[in-house]
Order: sequence, then C-alpha cells, then structure tokens
Amino acid sequence: MLPPEIQNFVDSFSKLPAIGPRMATRLSFFIASLPEHEQSRIREALNGLKTLDRCPRCFFIKPRAEKMCGICTNKKRDFHIVAIVEKDTDVFSIEKMGGFSGHYCVIGELDHRNPLGETQKQRLQSLKNRIVKESENGAGIEIIIALGPNTFGDFVSELIRQGFKDTHAKITRLGRGIPTGGDIEFADEETLRNSLENRK
Amino acid sequence: MLPPEIQNFVDSFSKLPAIGPRMATRLSFFIASLPEHEQSRIREALNGLKTLDRCPRCFFIKPRAEKMCGICTNKKRDFHIVAIVEKDTDVFSIEKMGGFSGHYCVIGELDHRNPLGETQKQRLQSLKNRIVKESENGAGIEIIIALGPNTFGDFVSELIRQGFKDTHAKITRLGRGIPTGGDIEFADEETLRNSLENRK
Repeated sequence: MLPPEIQNFVDSFSKLPAIGPRMATRLSFFIASLPEHEQSRIREALNGLKTLDRCPRCFFIKPRAEKMCGICTNKKRDFHIVAIVEKDTDVFSIEKMGGFSGHYCVIGELDHRNPLGETQKQRLQSLKNRIVKESENGAGIEIIIALGPNTFGDFVSELIRQGFKDTHAKITRLGRGIPTGGDIEFADEETLRNSLENRK
Repeated sequence: MLPPEIQNFVDSFSKLPAIGPRMATRLSFFIASLPEHEQSRIREALNGLKTLDRCPRCFFIKPRAEKMCGICTNKKRDFHIVAIVEKDTDVFSIEKMGGFSGHYCVIGELDHRNPLGETQKQRLQSLKNRIVKESENGAGIEIIIALGPNTFGDFVSELIRQGFKDTHAKITRLGRGIPTGGDIEFADEETLRNSLENRK
C-alpha cells in the first residue's frame, strides 16, 4: 500500500537514535510533501556529513579537509588540561557550557560487556603518547575523566587511572553533588553523600 | 568550534517535526560516525522521497512513475466509500488498522486561520466531480469525514457537509466514545455524552 520509497525511508531512519517507526513515517510524509528546494536543502545537509572524519589527536569530529579539529588547532586553548569523554556530544555539551578551555580525548561509546574495547585502548594509548611527548612524561598535565557518574563509569575511570599510573599526569574526575535545580528530598543517598563531601 | 557541516545539518533537521536542535545534534554526530556504506543507505533513503508526488484522484502520496496511488488502482477496494482525511499519516493509520477497504480523499493539513484553504477546496471539488461522475450525482456513495474529533474538526466537517448537500452522497463522521483502554473516571463530559449516544 505504501510506496516502497516511504517504506525504505522508514526502515533506514527508524534505526537512528530516538527515531522509532512512527516518527520515521511521519518524517517521510512530511519531507515528501516539502517543495523540492527544501527537500534538496535537507539532502545537502545530510550529504555534508560524509565529508567529516575524526581528529587524529583528540578523535573529535572534523572536516576531512582539515588536518586537525578546531579545538586542537586553537592556540588559545590550554593543552595542560585534557578531558576524557565518551562521545562527541559530550564535547558539544561541555563546549556549550563555555567554561572549559582545555583539550579533549573522545574515547568512543563504551560497551558494558567490554569496558575498554580496541577503540578505547588505541585512543587512550594515543593520549598517553601525546602527553609523554608534549610535556615530560605528563608532568603538569591534568586529565579530567568526564565519564558518566555511575558504577560503570567509576569502573572504567579506575581502569583509565591505572593505565596512566606510570605517567606524571594528575588524574581527576568531575565533581559530584546535587544537580542545580535538583531537590534534596529526592536526591539518592549516594548523591547526598557526595554533595556533602564536595561541599565548599 | 563545530564543523559547519554539523551546524548545517542541525539547522536543517531541527526544523523537521518533533526534531529539536538537541536531537538534531545527536543525530548529526551519530550519522557522521557511521561507516560510509550505512551513511550512503540513509542518503539513498532520503533521496528516494524526491521521486514521490500525489495521486491526482485521492491526493495520497505515490511514486511519480505511477499514474495513481496503490489504493485508487486496487480493484478490490470499494469506491462507494470515501474517507476524507487531513494528512497522509491518517491514511497510514487507518490502513494499518486494516478494517477499511474504501477510498480516500486527503485534503491536506488544516489551518485554523483559514479552515478551508485553496488546497482543501480544490481537492474537495475534485472529489465532488469524481462522485458525481462515477455514480449518478453521488447516489450510493458514503463519504466518511475523518477529521479530528474537536471543535475545529466539527466546524470544518460542517462546511464540507454543506458543500456536498447538492449531491446524493451520504455524509457520516467517525463515531465518538470512550477510547479503548480509556478510563470512564477521566473521560470529559462531551466524550461521555457521545459514548452514551453511540452505545450499542
């Protein structure tokens, strides 16, 4: 009953994060009903993504034509501070916040069955080589492990910490506490305990 | 800081229904991280939509290469029953339900400031011409107005009913009542009254 083009679109797009079959169907009809110049703009926006790859230094997304990403090449940023994050969107969130002027290392989405996979190991090794080379064995470098504040994140952080034991880098993690706008009444014990320990 | 390709994608995709800037950002990073053959499959799915246009008879979406949509050309369907719906997705919902074997007339999304716009008027006129021609002035034809069960839908339905007054078509609307799985306690008065009137 449905044109195969719609079905094909729904099949492809419903596999994307947070887009189910229902939303993909709605999108397909919506886009198909747009005038051709608007459809073409959307196609070009999607086409643009194929010209991206990863920064060889911090593994954040960058235009293929550039050697390194805009953060790594920005001379004003402080390479003495490196935040280890899981995903590109984490970089995006931290950059939007605006208070961080250090560098990053995007280690890639973590898999609970294999806490440090090949990708993670390679990227962390690359970070290690870089700090060992750029400052004497990591002296004066702070590595902030910005992974999720949960048991799995704790576990992976500990693995990373051990991996950097033989460098002089200082390893920290993001502070924990009550989220702004949060309610003490509904905070779990662990969060409350952390907020007390991190009081200032 | 972000590659312009990401920004461009976010600008385009955040204008689509139910996709905000946050989700568009997430999608852009997700798609950009996919291997090229998966990215290309998504691009092709989107490209496919440009080969669609509208059925000249019922205004549902169809492949450009076909003369009419799959519903209008299906000989097993009963052209004596026509459902007037607002959107393609309404056809999709009714077809998925499976109990309707009639035809459709998709009149296009309604605008509260202009209840029957040019598109609606043209499509309704085309429906009228068709029933007048296909059966004697609409004798034996039932037109089910399947618009939203709300005041605006009621108003537009009344306009449509008047427009078909000079034909012999029988005009009905979708039955109203308590939705399956709904709770009597939380039904509004209007719904309760309707459910009582439509009891069987």
